Amino acid sequence: MTSEATAVPIVRADGRAPDQLRPISITRGWSTQAEGSALIEFGNTRVLCTASLTAGVPRWLKGEGRGWVTAEYAMLPRATNTRSDRESVKGKIGGRTHEISRLIGRSLRSIIDTKALGENTIVLDCDVLQADGGTRTAAITGAYVALADAIRFARDNKLIAKNAQPLIDTIAAVSVGIIDGVPMLDLPYVEDVRAETDMNVVVTGSGKFVEVQGTAEGAPFDRAELDQLLDLALLGTTQLAAIQRETLADTL
Amino acid sequence: MTSEATAVPIVRADGRAPDQLRPISITRGWSTQAEGSALIEFGNTRVLCTASLTAGVPRWLKGEGRGWVTAEYAMLPRATNTRSDRESVKGKIGGRTHEISRLIGRSLRSIIDTKALGENTIVLDCDVLQADGGTRTAAITGAYVALADAIRFARDNKLIAKNAQPLIDTIAAVSVGIIDGVPMLDLPYVEDVRAETDMNVVVTGSGKFVEVQGTAEGAPFDRAELDQLLDLALLGTTQLAAIQRETLADTL
Amino acid sequence: MTSEATAVPIVRADGRAPDQLRPISITRGWSTQAEGSALIEFGNTRVLCTASLTAGVPRWLKGEGRGWVTAEYAMLPRATNTRSDRESVKGKIGGRTHEISRLIGRSLRSIIDTKALGENTIVLDCDVLQADGGTRTAAITGAYVALADAIRFARDNKLIAKNAQPLIDTIAAVSVGIIDGVPMLDLPYVEDVRAETDMNVVVTGSGKFVEVQGTAEGAPFDRAELDQLLDLALLGTTQLAAIQRETLADTL
Amino acid sequence: MTSEATAVPIVRADGRAPDQLRPISITRGWSTQAEGSALIEFGNTRVLCTASLTAGVPRWLKGEGRGWVTAEYAMLPRATNTRSDRESVKGKIGGRTHEISRLIGRSLRSIIDTKALGENTIVLDCDVLQADGGTRTAAITGAYVALADAIRFARDNKLIAKNAQPLIDTIAAVSVGIIDGVPMLDLPYVEDVRAETDMNVVVTGSGKFVEVQGTAEGAPFDRAELDQLLDLALLGTTQLAAIQRETLADTL
Amino acid sequence: MTSEATAVPIVRADGRAPDQLRPISITRGWSTQAEGSALIEFGNTRVLCTASLTAGVPRWLKGEGRGWVTAEYAMLPRATNTRSDRESVKGKIGGRTHEISRLIGRSLRSIIDTKALGENTIVLDCDVLQADGGTRTAAITGAYVALADAIRFARDNKLIAKNAQPLIDTIAAVSVGIIDGVPMLDLPYVEDVRAETDMNVVVTGSGKFVEVQGTAEGAPFDRAELDQLLDLALLGTTQLAAIQRETLADTL
Amino acid sequence: MTSEATAVPIVRADGRAPDQLRPISITRGWSTQAEGSALIEFGNTRVLCTASLTAGVPRWLKGEGRGWVTAEYAMLPRATNTRSDRESVKGKIGGRTHEISRLIGRSLRSIIDTKALGENTIVLDCDVLQADGGTRTAAITGAYVALADAIRFARDNKLIAKNAQPLIDTIAAVSVGIIDGVPMLDLPYVEDVRAETDMNVVVTGSGKFVEVQGTAEGAPFDRAELDQLLDLALLGTTQLAAIQRETLADTL
Repeated sequence: MTSEATAVPIVRADGRAPDQLRPISITRGWSTQAEGSALIEFGNTRVLCTASLTAGVPRWLKGEGRGWVTAEYAMLPRATNTRSDRESVKGKIGGRTHEISRLIGRSLRSIIDTKALGENTIVLDCDVLQADGGTRTAAITGAYVALADAIRFARDNKLIAKNAQPLIDTIAAVSVGIIDGVPMLDLPYVEDVRAETDMNVVVTGSGKFVEVQGTAEGAPFDRAELDQLLDLALLGTTQLAAIQRETLADTL
Repeated sequence: MTSEATAVPIVRADGRAPDQLRPISITRGWSTQAEGSALIEFGNTRVLCTASLTAGVPRWLKGEGRGWVTAEYAMLPRATNTRSDRESVKGKIGGRTHEISRLIGRSLRSIIDTKALGENTIVLDCDVLQADGGTRTAAITGAYVALADAIRFARDNKLIAKNAQPLIDTIAAVSVGIIDGVPMLDLPYVEDVRAETDMNVVVTGSGKFVEVQGTAEGAPFDRAELDQLLDLALLGTTQLAAIQRETLADTL
Repeated sequence: MTSEATAVPIVRADGRAPDQLRPISITRGWSTQAEGSALIEFGNTRVLCTASLTAGVPRWLKGEGRGWVTAEYAMLPRATNTRSDRESVKGKIGGRTHEISRLIGRSLRSIIDTKALGENTIVLDCDVLQADGGTRTAAITGAYVALADAIRFARDNKLIAKNAQPLIDTIAAVSVGIIDGVPMLDLPYVEDVRAETDMNVVVTGSGKFVEVQGTAEGAPFDRAELDQLLDLALLGTTQLAAIQRETLADTL
Repeated sequence: MTSEATAVPIVRADGRAPDQLRPISITRGWSTQAEGSALIEFGNTRVLCTASLTAGVPRWLKGEGRGWVTAEYAMLPRATNTRSDRESVKGKIGGRTHEISRLIGRSLRSIIDTKALGENTIVLDCDVLQADGGTRTAAITGAYVALADAIRFARDNKLIAKNAQPLIDTIAAVSVGIIDGVPMLDLPYVEDVRAETDMNVVVTGSGKFVEVQGTAEGAPFDRAELDQLLDLALLGTTQLAAIQRETLADTL
Repeated sequence: MTSEATAVPIVRADGRAPDQLRPISITRGWSTQAEGSALIEFGNTRVLCTASLTAGVPRWLKGEGRGWVTAEYAMLPRATNTRSDRESVKGKIGGRTHEISRLIGRSLRSIIDTKALGENTIVLDCDVLQADGGTRTAAITGAYVALADAIRFARDNKLIAKNAQPLIDTIAAVSVGIIDGVPMLDLPYVEDVRAETDMNVVVTGSGKFVEVQGTAEGAPFDRAELDQLLDLALLGTTQLAAIQRETLADTL
Repeated sequence: MTSEATAVPIVRADGRAPDQLRPISITRGWSTQAEGSALIEFGNTRVLCTASLTAGVPRWLKGEGRGWVTAEYAMLPRATNTRSDRESVKGKIGGRTHEISRLIGRSLRSIIDTKALGENTIVLDCDVLQADGGTRTAAITGAYVALADAIRFARDNKLIAKNAQPLIDTIAAVSVGIIDGVPMLDLPYVEDVRAETDMNVVVTGSGKFVEVQGTAEGAPFDRAELDQLLDLALLGTTQLAAIQRETLADTL
C-alpha cells in the first residue's frame, strides 16, 4: 500500500511489511493490586499500565460533579540498551517524560465523559519495563485497557451509577515514520533512530483523530508524505482497536 | 476560504476574518546585549527572543565539527491575566515549559546546517512578556529573526567562514483551530480556550512541514477538518515568512 | 559638588558629570495584563515592573485586617552581556536574587499603610529585560509606579475604600559609588565593576532613609566618604521622586 | 521448630507453617536489554532486578584496579495496595528508598572480589513491580542472579579475565518476625504490619551473616527471641541459596 | 571478657580495654531555648540534642488521642576531619542522614507511651558538632535526656496530665565491632574504619533490644562472633543507662 | 553618649546602658577538627565558627596565584525560641541565609590579601547553636578568629610562605538600632524585634567601614539618627577588636 508498486517488496529488518504491526500482546490484570492493569507488548516493547481509582478529585475541580483522569509515564533505568539515570535520583523529571505523560493523559481524557465518572479520579501509570520504540503509543493503547477495567471496577463496586457510561469510545495509538523515503508502520528503536519523519497518531475506535504529532527529525515533509503517514496510522489503530475489544470482550 | 460559503461572513471578536493573522510586528535588535534579538508581537502577545552565540558545543557533541542550536521558553509571572508562580521559585520547570522549549529548539534546528555552523552554540531564549495566545508559534517566528542576526554576527566577526551558510531555509509557525465548527487562523487566548481542536504548525520558507501538532481539546477531528487546518496554517506561515524576509532585508 | 574643585571637571565615559543621573524613562502601563505596570529605564538598564493585586493575604497574616506587599526580582538570561543560566533550570534561586527581592519588598512596604490596604496582597514582579548596572534601584523606583497604579485600580474597583490611603509616601532608589577616589551617582555596569565602594540607597519622597547598603568592594571607606555618598544619593532620589510624580500626575 | 511444641500446629493465613517460605520463583533473563536480569517472586511480591555492566569506575575509585557494585531500589507507584506518589515527581528520594538501596548494595558487595572485577561497574536496579512484604530481601536474592549473569557476560565478552572469579560466594536474604509471640519466616504484608519485631537477615551461601537488621516495631525483644529469629532466617536463606544455585545451574 | 584469655591484655590506641567505654559526658540543659536539651560527649564525639515540644500532631495522626516523637540527625560541615558540603546547599538529604534520623526516631518512640503523651509532638534534633565515631549511638543516648526533660516540661506546664507517664523505659545505644578479630566496645573513628564488622545496638533500661544493626564491612561474621558483640553491647548500654539516670536524678 | 542628657539614665531590660555591649566570650579552638575555630558568645547568642583550609581554589580562579575565602552561615533548627524547619529538609536555602552567608564572606575577604594566601581556599562555617539577636555580627567577629588561626596553621605547616601576611587588618561587626527613639548598641532578640531601625556595621581594626547595612523596619530614619548609629557601631567594634586581639595574643 505505502510502497510505490515496485517489483521487489520492501522487507524490514524483522521481516515485516511496511504496513504491518509488530506482534501485539495484552496481558489484562497483570497486577493484582490495581483496579485495572495491563502489561502491553509491541514486539520487545513492554509497558506495565495500571489504573488507580480514588474517590474525589483535585482541588481545582471540586464541586463540579466531574471526574478526572491523568497519567504518568516513566521508564525503568535499564529498560533501554544502555542504562539511564533515574529521574528520582536526578531530582527532576525530564522534558520528554513530562511531554509523554501529558500526551497520554490528554488522549485518555478524550474518550471519557467526566460527568458520568462522577467525582472520582483515575491515575494511569505507564511504566516502561523494556523499551524498543513506540513506548508512548503502546502506553496509550495499554492504558485504555487498564482504564476500562478500573471503570468496570467502579461500576461493580457501586462507586459510579450502574448505568453510567464514562467511556464514550475506545482509544489506541501507533507510531509511523518515513525511512529511506518509505512510510512505515510501528517503528522499533532501530528504525526510529533512522526515520526522517516520525509521527505519533492517537485515534478513537470510531476513527477520529485525537492527536497528530509529526516531527521532521531529518528532512521536512510535504503534504503528500503527511497523507501517506496518516493512512498508515489509521490502518494500525484499527487493528489495535480490534485487539483491545477482544481483550476486554467480557466487559464491553 | 475556510468558511462554507455562507451569505453572512464570519467575523471574529477582534474583527478579523477566519483566515486572517493578527497584526504582526517584529522589532529587530530590541536587546543591545545579545548577538541577535527580536521583540515579536502577534496582537497582544509579545515575546522577547534573544540569540546567544558562544564558541564550543555541549560535551556530547565535541569533536564532530558541528554546531548546536537550542532554545528555552519561559513566561514572566504576570504575562497572563492572573499571576502564575515563577518556575524558579517552585524549583522546577513545568511540563508545558519543557515541551515548548523542546518544540522551539527542534524547529529552529530543522533549518540549520550544523556543519556550516562549526563548533559554535546558539541558545535561543524566548521570554513571553505578555501572553494572549499563540506564544509558542510567535516564539518560533521571532527566534528565527534573532537566529539569523546571530549568524550574521558570527560571519561579521569571523567566528564562521565568510561563505558559510548555516541557514538553509527560513522557518515560521502559527496556530490554527476549530471554533464552533469553523477553522480559524492565529487564535488569541479568548478563542484558544474555546477551540475544539488546536493545532500548531511549523513550516519552512519553502512550504514544507517541520512540526504538525494537532490536539482535540474538545471533540476528535476527522480527516477533512485536518486538511482545512493545514491549508490555513500554510496560508499564515507564508505571510509570516514574507514579514521575516522584510525585517531581515539587509541581511539575507 | 562631589569633586574637589579641580580646574578640569571630571567627565564620565558616557559624558555625565559625577552627580548626574543617566536618562530616566518610565513607560507607565506597559503591560495590559497587570493591575499596575511600568517599564523603567536608567540608560540601558530596562526593568519591567508589574503589580498583581489579589484579594486575601498569606496564611500567617489572615484575620488581622492588614494587607501584604511583596516583590520578586529576576533577570532574563540574556539581560547581561554574557548569558546566565536560568534559575528555573538550575532549580534554585541564587543568593543575589533572593537578597534583591527582599530589598525591594522591604522598601515598598516601608511606604505602605497595610491597614489601609485591607486584606489584599500586591506582588511586585521586577524582571530585568536588559541590565547595565543599577537594576535593583531601577526596580524599586519603577515598582513604586506599578504599585501606585495597582492601588488606584483597587480604589476604582472598590476593592479598598474610596478614601483609603495605603500609600503614605513615595519611594525611589539609586546607586552611588567611589571610583578612583571620586564619589559618583548612578553607576552603569562599566563603573560598577571598578567601584571601590558601592552603595544602594532607598529614600522616601520626604527625604528619609529606608535602606542604606554600602559595601567596600575594594578598599574600606571612611566616615567622610560615606557622607559624600549619602549626599549624592539624596540628590539623585530627589530627582527620581520628581519624575515619578510627573509620571503619575493624573493619579496622585 | 520455632513453635513451642503445642498439640495444635500454627497455620498462617496463607496456609504456611511458621518456618515455611512462600512459593519462590526466579525468571532468569526476563529483560533482553540488561547484561543480567531476573524477575523474582516471593508469593505476590515481584521484583525486577537488572544488572548493568559498564567499563570504568566512579571517580573516587579510579586507578586502583578495583571494580564497583552498587544498587538502586524503587517501587512502582501502584506496586502497593494504594498508590504512592512517584519519587521523581516529589523531586526527592525518601529515606526508606535510600536505606534499602544502600542495604542491597552493601550486601552484594560483600560477596564480590572487587580486584577480580577489574575497573568495571555493575549497577543493580531492583524495581518492585508488585509489593506484598519482603521486597528488600527478594531484591537482594534476585539481584544476586542478575549479578552472576552480568559477570558471566563480562567473562564471555572478555571484559574480565577468563579465570577471574569476582564472585566469592552467593548471597540471599529473608525477613523474619514475631507475630503474637510466634517467630515466623518470610512475612507477607499482612503479617509484616502486625509483627512486634521485624528482622531482615542477609546470609552468604556459606552460612555467614552479612547484615542483621532487627527492629522492635511493637515490644522490645529479648536475647532468646533474637536467637529464634536468627535460626529461622538461616533456615530460609539456606533454601533460597539452593534455588539460586538451581536457577544458575548452567553458569556456576 | 571479650578477649581470649591471653597473657598480654589488648590495649587500644586510646589506652582503653576492649570492653571499656570512652569517657562519657552529658551536659543537661546546654541550650536555653529548647524544652529539653543535652550536649553529649563520647570522647571527642559531641552531639547537641534538643527536644522541641509542640501541641498537636501531624495530620495523619489527628484525632487519635496519641502523640508523636520524631528525630532529625545532621552533621555540621566541619564536624569531621575534612569538610563535607552542607546538605542544605546540595538541596537534598543524603541516604546516611535519612537512615540515622529514622533509627533515632524509632528508638525513642519504642519507650514512649503515645497515649500518655496526648496529642503533642516532640521533635528531637541531634546535631553532631564534632564527630569521632559513634555519632548515631551518642545521639540516641543524648536524645533520651532531652526527651525526658521535654516531658518534665510538659508536665510542669500542664500540657500533659500530672500523673501521665509517657516514658515507659529509658533507652541508650552503643556501637560495637570486630577489629583484627577482637570484639570491641564503643569504636572511635580510627577503629570504626578498620572494623570487619560494625554493629549498633539500641537497648532499653530493662535490657531488651530495640534495634540490632550489624553489618559486615569486611568479612561476614558467624554466630559466635555475633553473640560476643551482643554481650559487649549490653555491657555498654547498662553503663550508659546508669549515667543517664544520674544525669536526670532530680527528674525521674 | 547616645541618650540626650536626661536626668534619668536609660537602662535596658538586661541592665545595660544604651552604649554597652553584652558580655562577649570567645572560646578559641573549640573544635579539634578544623584548622581554626572559635565558639563566640554575645550574651545568649552562640555561634560556632570553623575555618577549613584546603589547597586549591574554585575553577574560575585557577591559575591566578590568588586564594579564596568564603563563608556559609546556618542556624540549628532549635537555635531559636520556636523550632524552624531545616533548610536541608526543605531542599533549599532561604533568602536570609544566603544574604548573611554572602555578607560574612565579603566582610572577611575585605581584610585578606588573596595574593599572599596563594592558591588556597578557606571556608568559614558559622553555625548558630543558639540565637538571641546579632547572630550575623557575632559570626563575622568569631569567624575572624577562626580565620586567623587557619592562616597561622597554613604558615606553621608551610602551606604559605613563612613571611606571607594574608591578613591585612582585623575585622569585627556589631548591630545597632533605634528603640523608642533611642539609639542602642548590640541588640538582643527582644530589642531587635522592637527596633524602628536596625543596622549592621562591619568595621576594620583600623576603624574603616566595610559594610553599612541600615534598614528602617518601622519608621524611616533621618541623617542625624544615621550619624548616631554609626558612632555607636564604631564604639562597639573598637571594643570587639580589642577582645579579638587579646584572644589571639599569642598569634598576632
